[in-house]
Amino acid sequence: MSLNDALHWRYAAKRLNGEQVPEETLERIMEAARLAPSSFGLHPWSLVHVRSQDLRARLHEDAAPQPQVIEGSDLLVFAVHDRDFKAQVDEHVAHMAHTRGVEESSLDGFRDMVKGVMDQKGSHEACLEWAARQAYIGMGVALSAAALEKVDASPMEGFYPDRLDKALGLREKGLKSVVIMALGYRDTERDPGAGRAKVRRDREDFIYTIE
Amino acid sequence: MSLNDALHWRYAAKRLNGEQVPEETLERIMEAARLAPSSFGLHPWSLVHVRSQDLRARLHEDAAPQPQVIEGSDLLVFAVHDRDFKAQVDEHVAHMAHTRGVEESSLDGFRDMVKGVMDQKGSHEACLEWAARQAYIGMGVALSAAALEKVDASPMEGFYPDRLDKALGLREKGLKSVVIMALGYRDTERDPGAGRAKVRRDREDFIYTIE
Repeated sequence: MSLNDALHWRYAAKRLNGEQVPEETLERIMEAARLAPSSFGLHPWSLVHVRSQDLRARLHEDAAPQPQVIEGSDLLVFAVHDRDFKAQVDEHVAHMAHTRGVEESSLDGFRDMVKGVMDQKGSHEACLEWAARQAYIGMGVALSAAALEKVDASPMEGFYPDRLDKALGLREKGLKSVVIMALGYRDTERDPGAGRAKVRRDREDFIYTIE
Repeated sequence: MSLNDALHWRYAAKRLNGEQVPEETLERIMEAARLAPSSFGLHPWSLVHVRSQDLRARLHEDAAPQPQVIEGSDLLVFAVHDRDFKAQVDEHVAHMAHTRGVEESSLDGFRDMVKGVMDQKGSHEACLEWAARQAYIGMGVALSAAALEKVDASPMEGFYPDRLDKALGLREKGLKSVVIMALGYRDTERDPGAGRAKVRRDREDFIYTIE
């Protein structure tokens, strides 16, 4: 199936049927998120994979009231790294040097440049917002991967981040949730959205070509 | 090729060889962006497709100094709709009613709910930032599509949005650029990044599983 066929097939299912997404399929979707690009490759976010039905039931009750949270088989939390961003740059440079088998000092120019960009952002809050955008690239890639696997992925912004972070112990890990996505299979009988025509901007209302 | 193989193949090429991406390939990549999901399906952003070599040369000189801007065959600008967001909701509801062949009044509950969410964001700036995140989902989908087509896609945040918007006349269209992406083909001989090992967080540093 082509990606565009998969994107036509997908929609943000509101009701899922509880069926378990196979382990290897789940791994491929999460791996796509891991491989997603980010500005400078810094990847200032992580994926929190919530499996337990009990825990999802508690999140559903307290932090994320959508049925998909309990009717999916897995919940992915896209969480930015709420830590000193320059320290993150140093860690990234060390990891880059290790991966490529080069001296860290050979990356000093890159390090200074990226730290300069962090400085230009002007505040920790601005860096967090920038990190959130990077996480959204990852979500775009992950939901493309899910669609190609014929797994329903329901992204949700409407939840209580503070409550979810607390319930999952994310603050202690230096993480802050920005968006969540349930994975599972659509329940076409109970989902009023199933089978509805997809609504997207028409091409002429979306693409402006400047020759 | 699987999406994950495509993601391993891709990297943000810094030098491109000037070869033209075929029309039908380009259309498929832009169509993937069009089909990308967004919060409430509002799709508060558009794609500006810059073709002309002359115009890209001017952008390169003034607004976006990276070589990919001129060495690619096409430049995509992801631009949010910098207009009254509640009016955008009304337009979306009208379009949705038309697409699905239902009365607009049947969507009044949805309309009020989405406007309520816009209100909660508290400011036009916060709505713009939310719109930018939606555009980044689209970029994640579009770069996945490009990778599957073996087209190199180089996303760039490092440019001067005001200058670029001015050069392209985006303000008059109510658009505001948030990120750009060159499309083309890697120049493996001139690109120092070609062939370098991909640097991503290790799985254990990226995925936190909570059973």
